[in-house]
Amino acid sequence: MTDRIECDYLIETPIDPARAAEVMAGEQSSGTFVALPGETAALRDRAAARVERLEEEAPARQPSLPCVMADRGQGYRRARLTLSWPLENIGPDLPNLMVTLAGNLFELREFSGLRVEDIRLPPGFAAAGPGPRFGADGTKRLCGIGAGPVIGTIVKPSVGLSPDETAALAGDLAAAGIDFIKDDELQANGPACPFGDRVRAVLSVLDAHAHRTGKRVMYAANLTGEIDDMRRRHDMVRDLGGTCVMVSLNSVGLSGFLALARHSELPIHAHRNGWGALSRAPLLGWSYPAWSKLWRLAGADHMHVNGLSNKFSESDESVIASARSLGEPLFAEKPCRAMPVFSSGQTAVQAADTYRKLGSADCLHAAGGGIMGHPDGPAAGVRSLREAWEAAMAGVPAEDYARDHPALAAALRRFR
Amino acid sequence: MTDRIECDYLIETPIDPARAAEVMAGEQSSGTFVALPGETAALRDRAAARVERLEEEAPARQPSLPCVMADRGQGYRRARLTLSWPLENIGPDLPNLMVTLAGNLFELREFSGLRVEDIRLPPGFAAAGPGPRFGADGTKRLCGIGAGPVIGTIVKPSVGLSPDETAALAGDLAAAGIDFIKDDELQANGPACPFGDRVRAVLSVLDAHAHRTGKRVMYAANLTGEIDDMRRRHDMVRDLGGTCVMVSLNSVGLSGFLALARHSELPIHAHRNGWGALSRAPLLGWSYPAWSKLWRLAGADHMHVNGLSNKFSESDESVIASARSLGEPLFAEKPCRAMPVFSSGQTAVQAADTYRKLGSADCLHAAGGGIMGHPDGPAAGVRSLREAWEAAMAGVPAEDYARDHPALAAALRRFR
Repeated sequence: MTDRIECDYLIETPIDPARAAEVMAGEQSSGTFVALPGETAALRDRAAARVERLEEEAPARQPSLPCVMADRGQGYRRARLTLSWPLENIGPDLPNLMVTLAGNLFELREFSGLRVEDIRLPPGFAAAGPGPRFGADGTKRLCGIGAGPVIGTIVKPSVGLSPDETAALAGDLAAAGIDFIKDDELQANGPACPFGDRVRAVLSVLDAHAHRTGKRVMYAANLTGEIDDMRRRHDMVRDLGGTCVMVSLNSVGLSGFLALARHSELPIHAHRNGWGALSRAPLLGWSYPAWSKLWRLAGADHMHVNGLSNKFSESDESVIASARSLGEPLFAEKPCRAMPVFSSGQTAVQAADTYRKLGSADCLHAAGGGIMGHPDGPAAGVRSLREAWEAAMAGVPAEDYARDHPALAAALRRFR
Repeated sequence: MTDRIECDYLIETPIDPARAAEVMAGEQSSGTFVALPGETAALRDRAAARVERLEEEAPARQPSLPCVMADRGQGYRRARLTLSWPLENIGPDLPNLMVTLAGNLFELREFSGLRVEDIRLPPGFAAAGPGPRFGADGTKRLCGIGAGPVIGTIVKPSVGLSPDETAALAGDLAAAGIDFIKDDELQANGPACPFGDRVRAVLSVLDAHAHRTGKRVMYAANLTGEIDDMRRRHDMVRDLGGTCVMVSLNSVGLSGFLALARHSELPIHAHRNGWGALSRAPLLGWSYPAWSKLWRLAGADHMHVNGLSNKFSESDESVIASARSLGEPLFAEKPCRAMPVFSSGQTAVQAADTYRKLGSADCLHAAGGGIMGHPDGPAAGVRSLREAWEAAMAGVPAEDYARDHPALAAALRRFR
């Protein structure tokens, strides 16, 4: 068992990749661009990053990112490499882990591409965050769900509804049989729909529904904001009987998120908006499996992974790799598994493939148009999603199951 | 005077840019991919984002980012456009501003490039953050500097020195006449050099120096970490007579930073490490002038902008545009000017151009090798930087000034 932190990168460089790897290791630990008396051999032994592995791949003819250095006639050479650092450099500390693994190095002139591919943390790092307290199991328990996924939806229009209009919509969705409703990420605490008014109105409607039917719909109230506000909003949700809060990760940051997560007594629905800026250039930024590990350890219970055949630019392969990675244990003693949230252009049509490729139904499947746009109305929309998952879990093709399940049949006709 | 938030983007799209702009506006406000009964005309009037301007530029033949949509025979069309939102959608709220301006839209399939270029905020938004409390003026006052820049340096090796070794180095640098010393961003609170031990050791040495010489060297102590730790560390620095704290912006996030900034009584040295991931792909992410506005309003006093002829991949033109933008007022009544920090491969050589292109000496000029690597030692290194700025501000070519300023003369010989 090592006590070193490891990080895998994909790099592209106009110079020898072995030399480029040394530049990275130097920049991110004890190196300087002028030799200094203080940089002794003992200090390097103690603190220097190490190149653990380097595997060259086929080069690119053109640089993936603008690069001030010209290549040396061998193109822009690509490699996968692993650096490691002693835990002693930073201790179990997530914000400073980000600095060490993914700080200045993206700007280095020696690279025409640099992407964080994966992270492995020593057991001593597990103390850096609380980890998810609920994950899929805890969420499904709170929703009263046994087998099958959590069927969810998003308040739409994203922004513009008043608190009472939002509550009325939540009531309709509850009546339609939904398990989970989330605010849109654009709706937090705008003057046109203040957080407190909205949460009181929505939870009052959902509470009445629970008393009538025995089913408590989970409402992810978007409390994104400043720390003290987020903690106060969390407490309001909890005191009103709410069972979930939602937050935009890239807006609050790791330190902001940790302040909420350490305080929270509810599942945290973690929204990744802004993620595209960190990931859409193939040789820049982060892979989702690496990036999401930081947030899982920090305490994210539900993590967005996009959905199959989504309206965004992500491939199905990438969506599934992201979703599966959330189930891989971070530490043997503290796995920090988060529940994947599939959303974006989702309908009953994607259920079978999602189940087959994920290998599990422990997820949240969120649909907007796939529910509200069902030809027989929202209740049939929710039912069609459940039926699609029932079929998938039973190993029955959706078309066969649809024969005596009209909601699924209508969804397949409309959305396929 | 408008009460709308405006954001300028550079986009690249396989479809008609006017249509692509509508998709962006819809995604980031009240639009949905299936028409919904709740999306009334009144709601759109109230909440929809508007396309204010659109100017097409020459198209690209190849998509800048992988794009699932093919072009329609006209290449990947580029345009500069402005969207606007009513302040009522989010209120004066920085974390949620980021969601609205730069959330899901980077992932939209209709784009092969999308970059935030600039932001304009209505006066009502000024309440969203405290703004810098010190900026260049307050910092120079605390450093006892009249005309000329703050001459600074960074503790190197970045990581690996013990608290006492760091303090000894700080003492040497103080003796060399430096104005400002900062921790490296890799050094925060690692077990090998805990924050408290380091700060006590360094400030004790600098305090003794101040009593001896009357000059108080500013030490930017890197307190990056979780919120409550950062606040406690700030108080420790303040109580020990320290005059600055440093934080890594991308690690703590906007909410994390605001929690520190609202609490802080000291100038905040804001480090942008990780910035490359948001900026190195030319058609993805953020321009620095736009991105830094969020942090200026949030309270950043010193902001890193790289340096001329730096060791990274940024052009001089971009460095200067970044630095100058920090002086442009955010609001007429609350300009939120931050002090630019020039660093990376800096020596006396770059002073003249930096002064000329910035149009001011209200900056921090930080050199590592340019001080420690000076042929006549660190004191001559500091002196060479001061002399280079004196020459620049007097309109005298460095070579001329160097005739009776040997430290500058030696620096020009070594570093040019």
